[in-house]
Amino acid sequence: MPLVRIDVNHGRTAEQLQRLSRGIHDAILAEYAIPERDYFHILTEHPQGQIVAQDAGLGFERTPDVVMIQIFTQGGRSQAAKQSLFAAIADRLAELDVAGEDVFIGYVENAAGDWSFGFGRAQYVTGELAVPRK
Amino acid sequence: MPLVRIDVNHGRTAEQLQRLSRGIHDAILAEYAIPERDYFHILTEHPQGQIVAQDAGLGFERTPDVVMIQIFTQGGRSQAAKQSLFAAIADRLAELDVAGEDVFIGYVENAAGDWSFGFGRAQYVTGELAVPRK
Amino acid sequence: MPLVRIDVNHGRTAEQLQRLSRGIHDAILAEYAIPERDYFHILTEHPQGQIVAQDAGLGFERTPDVVMIQIFTQGGRSQAAKQSLFAAIADRLAELDVAGEDVFIGYVENAAGDWSFGFGRAQYVTGELAVPRK
Repeated sequence: MPLVRIDVNHGRTAEQLQRLSRGIHDAILAEYAIPERDYFHILTEHPQGQIVAQDAGLGFERTPDVVMIQIFTQGGRSQAAKQSLFAAIADRLAELDVAGEDVFIGYVENAAGDWSFGFGRAQYVTGELAVPRK
Repeated sequence: MPLVRIDVNHGRTAEQLQRLSRGIHDAILAEYAIPERDYFHILTEHPQGQIVAQDAGLGFERTPDVVMIQIFTQGGRSQAAKQSLFAAIADRLAELDVAGEDVFIGYVENAAGDWSFGFGRAQYVTGELAVPRK
Repeated sequence: MPLVRIDVNHGRTAEQLQRLSRGIHDAILAEYAIPERDYFHILTEHPQGQIVAQDAGLGFERTPDVVMIQIFTQGGRSQAAKQSLFAAIADRLAELDVAGEDVFIGYVENAAGDWSFGFGRAQYVTGELAVPRK
């Protein structure tokens, strides 16, 4: 169920983009114990200048390699679980040479009943899918 | 008020995209009884490979025609109402030859006061617009 | 922390887009008293026809200059604060010749702990950043 929007500047190859997405998914799999095929990403490339991502006052500079990640998923997980996820995402992206400075994450919660994976059915409500533990 | 983000792969004509959007809007009109002109969609086309949408373990395959739908609207509607909406969207898209396998929906709730339709005014709070019944 | 998605039709220059983004950010700075560098925007240009934005029944017409703004930020601010923000955004955009009819805003709330500005850390939780007052 997480739906992940990933926004980046133009400049990566298709294979690099695919690895970026895969790295984020692997972090979610490892931390949230969701099914392997619970994989829903929307990646959008932007011309330079259309992503603005400063440092919120933390005192660092980002590069054009910045990766803007927005995660939509069911609520209920603990703050600690979210923080583990954020760290795992940064770790996986570090393996792909994305600097810690370039990993921005926002998280938005909804409910299991807010998802339909196909056929207009809400599979967490119908029981076709088990709701992931929180 | 629903703001609907629709993400698809490149490959449909402008007319097909317009019908897709219209079908989703017609489903919302029919199910939620909102005003006809309460129509706010943002459609984005993507190069192949930039939308990842597996099956969450349900056991089916999607096609490149997959339609990723994200609905932002006021909270308060019942689970049954949401499920009717999901089904209606899939039904309308089926009429446009979008397979049930290719309809992904995520739903995010906010409040009526979280919307401004123009002029920097929150028209559901000022009373310029009636808040849709839930 | 606000993450702002801005969707517009093709047709503005890079400089015009940059001023649009800056105007929205200046409104947020003025109204929410966040740090100057708490600036996170994702701007996406669309071919004509891929943004649908009618009037919700209010009785006006939009132009192709329409600016779709979606603000993701921590919950807890008052309705009055949000309405001041909406008005300030419209005022700033008016200075850039964006008509009031063309300013659409949706607002989605999460929590301070739902953000990571870099390094996989949740800086509002670790204390590296002060949570903006509400």
